[in-house]
Amino acid sequence: MIKNSEFVEIKFLPDNVSIRVKKGTTILQAAEKAELSVNTECGGYGSCGKCKVKIISGSFEKHKHIELSDEEIKQHIQLACLTEIFDNIECLILKQAEFEVSRSSLREKSLYKREFIKDSVPFTFKYKSLLEKITFKVDNPDIEHNPDDFERIKMKLIDLYGAVDIRCPISLLKRIPGELRKKDGLISLDILKSGSSMEIIQTTASREKKYDYGFAVDIGTTTVAVQLVNLIEGKIISEKSEYNRQILYGADIISRIVYAMKNGGLEKLRTKVLSTINNLIDDILNETGVEKKSVDYCSIAGNTTMQHLLLGINPRYIREEPYVPAVLHFPKFKAEDLKLNINPNGIVYITPGVSSYVGGDITAGILQSGINRSKILSLYVDLGTNGEIVLGNSEWMTACACSAGPAFEGGGLKCGMRAEQGAVEKINFDKNARYIKYEVIGGSKPKGICGSAIIDIISGLYFSDIINQKGKFNFESENKRLRKGENYSEFVLIYGNETSTGDDIVITEQDLDNLLRTKGAIWAGISTLLKAVDIKSSDIEKIIIAGAFGNYINIENAILIGMLPDVEIEKFHFSGNGSLKGAALTLISEEMRIEIEEISRKITNFELSSTHGYMEEFIASLFIPHTEAELFPSFIKKKKQKPEVRSQKPEYRMKE
Amino acid sequence: MIKNSEFVEIKFLPDNVSIRVKKGTTILQAAEKAELSVNTECGGYGSCGKCKVKIISGSFEKHKHIELSDEEIKQHIQLACLTEIFDNIECLILKQAEFEVSRSSLREKSLYKREFIKDSVPFTFKYKSLLEKITFKVDNPDIEHNPDDFERIKMKLIDLYGAVDIRCPISLLKRIPGELRKKDGLISLDILKSGSSMEIIQTTASREKKYDYGFAVDIGTTTVAVQLVNLIEGKIISEKSEYNRQILYGADIISRIVYAMKNGGLEKLRTKVLSTINNLIDDILNETGVEKKSVDYCSIAGNTTMQHLLLGINPRYIREEPYVPAVLHFPKFKAEDLKLNINPNGIVYITPGVSSYVGGDITAGILQSGINRSKILSLYVDLGTNGEIVLGNSEWMTACACSAGPAFEGGGLKCGMRAEQGAVEKINFDKNARYIKYEVIGGSKPKGICGSAIIDIISGLYFSDIINQKGKFNFESENKRLRKGENYSEFVLIYGNETSTGDDIVITEQDLDNLLRTKGAIWAGISTLLKAVDIKSSDIEKIIIAGAFGNYINIENAILIGMLPDVEIEKFHFSGNGSLKGAALTLISEEMRIEIEEISRKITNFELSSTHGYMEEFIASLFIPHTEAELFPSFIKKKKQKPEVRSQKPEYRMKE
Repeated sequence: MIKNSEFVEIKFLPDNVSIRVKKGTTILQAAEKAELSVNTECGGYGSCGKCKVKIISGSFEKHKHIELSDEEIKQHIQLACLTEIFDNIECLILKQAEFEVSRSSLREKSLYKREFIKDSVPFTFKYKSLLEKITFKVDNPDIEHNPDDFERIKMKLIDLYGAVDIRCPISLLKRIPGELRKKDGLISLDILKSGSSMEIIQTTASREKKYDYGFAVDIGTTTVAVQLVNLIEGKIISEKSEYNRQILYGADIISRIVYAMKNGGLEKLRTKVLSTINNLIDDILNETGVEKKSVDYCSIAGNTTMQHLLLGINPRYIREEPYVPAVLHFPKFKAEDLKLNINPNGIVYITPGVSSYVGGDITAGILQSGINRSKILSLYVDLGTNGEIVLGNSEWMTACACSAGPAFEGGGLKCGMRAEQGAVEKINFDKNARYIKYEVIGGSKPKGICGSAIIDIISGLYFSDIINQKGKFNFESENKRLRKGENYSEFVLIYGNETSTGDDIVITEQDLDNLLRTKGAIWAGISTLLKAVDIKSSDIEKIIIAGAFGNYINIENAILIGMLPDVEIEKFHFSGNGSLKGAALTLISEEMRIEIEEISRKITNFELSSTHGYMEEFIASLFIPHTEAELFPSFIKKKKQKPEVRSQKPEYRMKE
Repeated sequence: MIKNSEFVEIKFLPDNVSIRVKKGTTILQAAEKAELSVNTECGGYGSCGKCKVKIISGSFEKHKHIELSDEEIKQHIQLACLTEIFDNIECLILKQAEFEVSRSSLREKSLYKREFIKDSVPFTFKYKSLLEKITFKVDNPDIEHNPDDFERIKMKLIDLYGAVDIRCPISLLKRIPGELRKKDGLISLDILKSGSSMEIIQTTASREKKYDYGFAVDIGTTTVAVQLVNLIEGKIISEKSEYNRQILYGADIISRIVYAMKNGGLEKLRTKVLSTINNLIDDILNETGVEKKSVDYCSIAGNTTMQHLLLGINPRYIREEPYVPAVLHFPKFKAEDLKLNINPNGIVYITPGVSSYVGGDITAGILQSGINRSKILSLYVDLGTNGEIVLGNSEWMTACACSAGPAFEGGGLKCGMRAEQGAVEKINFDKNARYIKYEVIGGSKPKGICGSAIIDIISGLYFSDIINQKGKFNFESENKRLRKGENYSEFVLIYGNETSTGDDIVITEQDLDNLLRTKGAIWAGISTLLKAVDIKSSDIEKIIIAGAFGNYINIENAILIGMLPDVEIEKFHFSGNGSLKGAALTLISEEMRIEIEEISRKITNFELSSTHGYMEEFIASLFIPHTEAELFPSFIKKKKQKPEVRSQKPEYRMKE
């Protein structure tokens, strides 16, 4: 039923937005053009099955997909990315609001705090920012001796600092004559020194400005966090975070890289992450009353891909063997180069990375952890969308990255959500998994489950015999919570009468598959690193877990499912968003900024994909806890306490 | 006849442009708003009398002005800057097209040449630009050793140059991954070194680009000239010049500074001079086929005020005692900072100045003259709208600036024009000034008189007894060419039947007044410098005359009228636009760029306004040749050859 025109009109509900597009455009492309957000994790490649729309009127060609149930297809529910339109249609975007709602609730969690940054690290360091604020009085000219204004300033800088090459942007040269004459030659400069060269960043007559500020930024694949820091006092003034607005173009790094290679994709991703950061900056400045022009410095941590995308650098070679990023040790930029909403002459420092997948977020986390300063053998595990692992001490460090997926940030799960208001963060099963206790962030009715609860669920379901070692449901258990869902079998964690949405909160067999892959990837990474340097789990003296969890994960459960090394609980520490904390350290201390550069050069990177034994280890780790259960003595001990569980051998065991 | 509305409409002819403005707006303000050019030399302060308009319809309040004849007032001719409008009117802009016409004829004089810059200087120097082009091959990565692209380039730069601080703009970081993979790691960079720091300016795979180019620019108060230079061969490829589009806002430096202090004035002046330069650049690039991205370097000479205006820096303190400019020794900028139409990462060097009125045009001229390298005592005289004078040798140099006025560029005279097609450039009188011979640039009918002819006229009129020592007409001479004009007495040089316009070409008593002030200012400057260092005219071994004249001035006549020192003709040399030539030298030779910095710091500046004896010398110089005629023996000799002239004593003599 193709009408005789090149264009068709599509109307989106619930927003009631219409747009004219060329025939053959997919519903997803039309929604992007209309700037509507449609839930997609794969970036529109037909694989994630998230971008469901219900077609209300108009003709369309039905398609089938593993993620679409027969019932859904009957109800005209289709995937937006696979449905091309040739007729005027009206459609309802399902789940569209998910990110929007989460975003606003996430943003409410902004902090107005005055924490000293030094209190968050287990060592001491020198407070001396790369940026210095200096005040001096220049000589007043007379008719016999009348050097130009800039010369009079330069003479003082040469005198005070021995500077040779003094740079000054035009915008400040313009201000200098007026500022010099306001207070009879008394002037304050914010300066950046680098060897014998020096750059003027800000200039004000006398000491009009009492404080200097900087922003620490962490760009996660899923979440962006920003902290306003008082550079003089070394205090955190405020902190906010928000979903990375790039999420609409793919849930993980690889989807983003693929999207960046599309025509115009790179620029879209750049503007999305930039607007995420600038909005957080604007909000903080508005709330705190700090002036934009008083912010002269910004330190940006993030994984290698995120840093590339922020700069608009094509990340394609990150994904292609031999995995060479464009840049890991970034030159310094000006805020205006990136279009960051601070003083345009302000300096932007980007934390250095180690490799394509061990980026500037990890070096920042290591900096904050102090692992590099200590003789204690430590393991650092960052549980983000990518899982990064660092093993080492002050002598040596090795690292690797494993594609964990977004499960710990609530992504890729039927009822997953971020660790925020309404998320179940802890969960306990009775021995038969008939009665379930849970804790919800904010104390309200539950809406979904977040990362920390997920680990409890796998452990709980396994030890109550609901799932087997391969994560498959055991229907012989005859648990009433276990049922066939629309597409997959599922286990009801919380019935709809207790939830805020009225829907049951469930975990599906597909979720379990995802989760085993996540925990398997992490363990395989840890294990590969340990083997590479010939160290046993038991040799590890300290384990630092970084990542944004609710009230932190249950370590016992994480060990029981075979995700983390089976060592004493006392060895475990949580560092929260170590990346953001590390970025803040580089703002207030030049010693720290130099140290992070050293860290990035000191870490030896393992590309897991080309590391012997990784794939085998990964496959062995898809079992609970592992094909070699003896790696996890706690598991064996717990098993023994639970004699009713059939002592079945793993069905699959790798040859060594 | 005020109508009941706040706004009135004004229609401008011949452009037929209408604009609505608030009542009380002057016609000049309305024309500016309509972006029409009205001739004004004073910047709209009612002093130059150039902005004449003829009101065709509508009521207005008549005003009188020394520059308006009764006949003109009768014809409804008024000054645009003094006429406020309260009624809808229609008016004709007189002489509007003057600059437009001149501009296009001036622009036709573009050159396509391939001159070696070295041939224009009397010394040798090292060809080695600040910018270097280097080509190398980076190591290809493999899975075992995969540093990022930028790192692989940096390692080579550190290896080859020992660079420490390597800067690279985002736009080039974006290009690097692609360029590196085009030719298997073979890459060419244009780099700028400065101490231990290094900046990447351009990057291309292998040697796609054979040449590097730069632009030399000279911003004169009246004329802007631009030269395209091949940096590798040291050749001038093309040259073009155009009136400085700021001219509409005032003819001389002081008018521009005053205009810059008006609301929005500074920005207007900035955009006007920028568009002048960018248009010349665009034209040259179009004509020569050189790509914008291949132009990495620009060196800009100009007087201190022009350099300030190009950067948008308020020049107000240049004009206020103690005459302190914002900046004389400029940091380097990027082309994008100024919005110059070359590679946005390209470097902009601005030649250093000496003082508020001895600017980067003079240091460039001195560089090109080689005075600073020679033991010969030399005098450098730049006859522009400002007259600058430098005296010295390789041991020492002194300088001063005197406000000569635009006479030598054709400004401020009833029939004055620039040295271009149709300008009388030489003129000879018979002994009674009855028969006059002249030469016209381009050989066509004459249209006006230019700087070089002006000197001949004063000398000729004086020695034929038409004017006296004070420049006043001698009506006793009974010369028929002498007559009462509309406002001033005038002498007809060329009758209308011989001119291209049909109008007589005349010189008025007011013109003579202006010219005597011009020549007097120059002599007083030279004389004051000589006295300050206790040197006599006869000690000067070389005199270099810079400035844009037609076929150069007649030196004998310039001596006879008391403008230049009375020394042997062989000592005089013309350097043309020395400022532009000096700028070109800094482009191709880092040795030259360092030398011009040394020159700027070596020259001792005299502020004439505060130098003892200057005003007295100036007043004594308003006579032909001077109240002390014995300073000019050639004059006395010529006088003796002409016994019929009354041997009248100067009527005024300064006390010593």
